[in-house]
Amino acid sequence: MSLPSPHPSTPSGRNATGQASGRTARIVLDVTGGDRPQIERLAGALEAARDFVGDTHIILCGPQQQIERDLATLGGKPANVSVVDAPERIGMHESPVKALRSKKRSSIVVGVGLVADGQADAFVSAGNTGAVAAASTLKLGRLKGVQRPGIAVAMRMLDHTVVAIDVGASVDSRPMHLLHFAIMAEVFAREVVGVAKPRVGLLSVGEEDTKGNDLTKQTFDLLATADLDFVGNVEPKLMISKGGCDVIVCDGFVGNILLKFGEGLLSKMTGWLREQIPQKLSYKIGYWFLRKLLRHMKACADYSEYGGAPLLGINGVTIITHGTSDAHAIRNAIREARSFVENKVTDHIVAAIATDAARRAED
Amino acid sequence: MSLPSPHPSTPSGRNATGQASGRTARIVLDVTGGDRPQIERLAGALEAARDFVGDTHIILCGPQQQIERDLATLGGKPANVSVVDAPERIGMHESPVKALRSKKRSSIVVGVGLVADGQADAFVSAGNTGAVAAASTLKLGRLKGVQRPGIAVAMRMLDHTVVAIDVGASVDSRPMHLLHFAIMAEVFAREVVGVAKPRVGLLSVGEEDTKGNDLTKQTFDLLATADLDFVGNVEPKLMISKGGCDVIVCDGFVGNILLKFGEGLLSKMTGWLREQIPQKLSYKIGYWFLRKLLRHMKACADYSEYGGAPLLGINGVTIITHGTSDAHAIRNAIREARSFVENKVTDHIVAAIATDAARRAED
Repeated sequence: MSLPSPHPSTPSGRNATGQASGRTARIVLDVTGGDRPQIERLAGALEAARDFVGDTHIILCGPQQQIERDLATLGGKPANVSVVDAPERIGMHESPVKALRSKKRSSIVVGVGLVADGQADAFVSAGNTGAVAAASTLKLGRLKGVQRPGIAVAMRMLDHTVVAIDVGASVDSRPMHLLHFAIMAEVFAREVVGVAKPRVGLLSVGEEDTKGNDLTKQTFDLLATADLDFVGNVEPKLMISKGGCDVIVCDGFVGNILLKFGEGLLSKMTGWLREQIPQKLSYKIGYWFLRKLLRHMKACADYSEYGGAPLLGINGVTIITHGTSDAHAIRNAIREARSFVENKVTDHIVAAIATDAARRAED
Repeated sequence: MSLPSPHPSTPSGRNATGQASGRTARIVLDVTGGDRPQIERLAGALEAARDFVGDTHIILCGPQQQIERDLATLGGKPANVSVVDAPERIGMHESPVKALRSKKRSSIVVGVGLVADGQADAFVSAGNTGAVAAASTLKLGRLKGVQRPGIAVAMRMLDHTVVAIDVGASVDSRPMHLLHFAIMAEVFAREVVGVAKPRVGLLSVGEEDTKGNDLTKQTFDLLATADLDFVGNVEPKLMISKGGCDVIVCDGFVGNILLKFGEGLLSKMTGWLREQIPQKLSYKIGYWFLRKLLRHMKACADYSEYGGAPLLGINGVTIITHGTSDAHAIRNAIREARSFVENKVTDHIVAAIATDAARRAED
C-alpha cells in the first residue's frame, strides 16, 4: 500500500485563519460495508477520484486482492487512489460492540484507525451504522465539551432541505445533548450544506412554547438562550414546509423513527405506483408523461443525492451513507467528506461548543 | 329539543351475552368544532341519519338557531335527528383546560355532558383535540384499571391498515401505559376495524429484542407476557409493509409526530404534484391517465375514509375526527361511533384490562 504522507497539523489540519488550506483531503472509503456489491462502491470512488483529482486522495479499505481485481475491471487504479487491506467483514446486522471486538481487521476498524492515526482525514462507510458510530466514537474520541455524538442527515423535502439531528446515534437523550446536537448541526448546515444563517427548530407536538414532553420543555430554554437563530418548537407540518426551519433537533429514538418512516413511506408509494402502472395501458402512458416528476419524488426518498450522514461530535470526520448507496451516492459522500475537511467543520464545532459553554458559565 | 329516552342499562348498555342488543345508538355530533363550515358537518350527519336510519339517532350539538337554519337549507330534519343548543365555541387552538373552564355552554362541554348523563352513547367531534380528550377524560372518567387514555388511529398504508396508539392523548408514557394502549387497541382492531386476530408490535429503532430506548425495553417484557399476539419490536419499515403488524404501540409524543409527519409528507407530495402538473401539457396528459392512482395516494393522507380516532380508556365513546373532515368523513366517524356502541367495545376493554391485571397478580 501507499498512503499520502501525514500532514504536520494532523489530525484536523487546522490553520490560524480558518481558511481552507488547499491541501489534499485524504478520505478512507469502507469498500466492504453496504448492501450492494463492492464494485458499485469502487465505481463511486473512481468517479470521485476523477472529479476531485486536484485535492483528494481516496484510500480504499477492504479485501485487497478483490479490490485490485475489481479495479482492473473498472479500468485500473488512478494515482490519487490507494488500497489498504482489511480482509474481515462486519455484517449489516451484527452487534456493533461484539463485532468491533472480534474483527480487528475489518474495514471499519482498520479504516477508522487510519483516521485515528493521522494517516487519513475522513472515513466514509455504507456499512453497519452502529459499528461505524461506535468505532468512530471509541477510536477518535469525542470533541471537547461534547457529551454525545449525534448523526445528522440532510432530509430532502421536494423543494427544500432540512438537517435533522440526532437520527439514531443514541436514545434517551438529555437536554444538554440536544443543545449540543443543535450547535453542531447548525455548523454543519452553514459550513457544508451552505445555508447562510440556519434557523434551528425543536421537534415537538405543538408550536406553543409550553407544548412537548419533559425533554423538549427542558431543552427549549437551553436553545432559547444559545447563540442560535432558534425558531422555537416545530411540528412535522412546519418542518415539511419550505421556510419552516433549516435544522430540526430531536432525540435519536424519535429522529431515527421519523427518518425511516419518511423513507419507507416514500419508497412504498413509489413502489406501489411501480406495481400498479404495468397493469393498464393507460397507466403506462400516464407514467411516461409524468416520469420526470415521479422520479424526483422517488429521489427524495433516499437522501443520497446530498451525500451521507455525518457523525457530529467526534474528533474526526465520519460520514455514514445509506446501505443501498450506489456509485453516485458514494461519490457524493466522498464529496461531502472532502467539504468537511476543507471547511474545518470539526474546528468550527469545537469553537461553537466552547463559546456556548463560556456564555453559560458567565450567566 | 327531543332526545330519545335513556336506556335502562346506560351508559354502556351491556347485556349478558355480549351480543349487540339491536337498540338505537344515540350519537352526539359536535357541530361547532372543525376547520370547515358547520353545514359540511351537518350534511355528514344527514348522510349518516339516512344510511343508518333503523338503529341510529343523531344529536346535533351546537348553536341551535344556526343549525335549524342550515338544516332547512339541506332539506329539513329527519326523525332520527335532534338538536341540543350549545352556543359557545372552543377554538381549534385554544388552551383546552382554560376553554373547558370558561365555556360551559360550548359544544364540547355540553356534548360530552350528554354522554356522561346517560342521554347519549357516543360523542363525535372534529374540534380541538386537546379539549375533546380533556373533557371526555374529566366528565366520563377512566375505565377501571386504565391509568391513561390513549388516542388510536387507523393509518392507511396504501394496501393495508395499521392501528397506531397513542397518537397524542399524552406524552412521557410509562411502560404500564403502553401495555394498556396495546390491550385497548387490540380490542378496537378486533371489534371495530375487523381484524380477526390482531398482531401487536412495539414501535422501535430496531427489530432485535434489545433495541430501543428505556421505555420500549421495559415495555417489551410487559407486552411479551400479555395475552396478545405480540410480534416484538417493529421498525417503521415493517409497520409500513403489508403483513408487518395490525397494531403499533408507542408513546404519544412519538405517535403524534409520526402521524403528522406521514400526513404532512403525503399531502406535500400530492400538493407538489398538483403544482407541477399544470406547468406542462405533457404533465397534464400524464395526470389524466394516472389520476385514479394519484387520488388513491392522496386519499391515504387523511385517514378519514375509515372514520375517526377513538379516545380509548374512557368510560364512554369519544371519536375525534380530523379538523378538515368533510361530510363523508363525518358520516364515517358516526358509523364508527355506532360500531363502538353496537359491539360494546368499552365492555370488551374493561374485561381485557381486568384479565391482564388478574394474570399479573397471579404471577
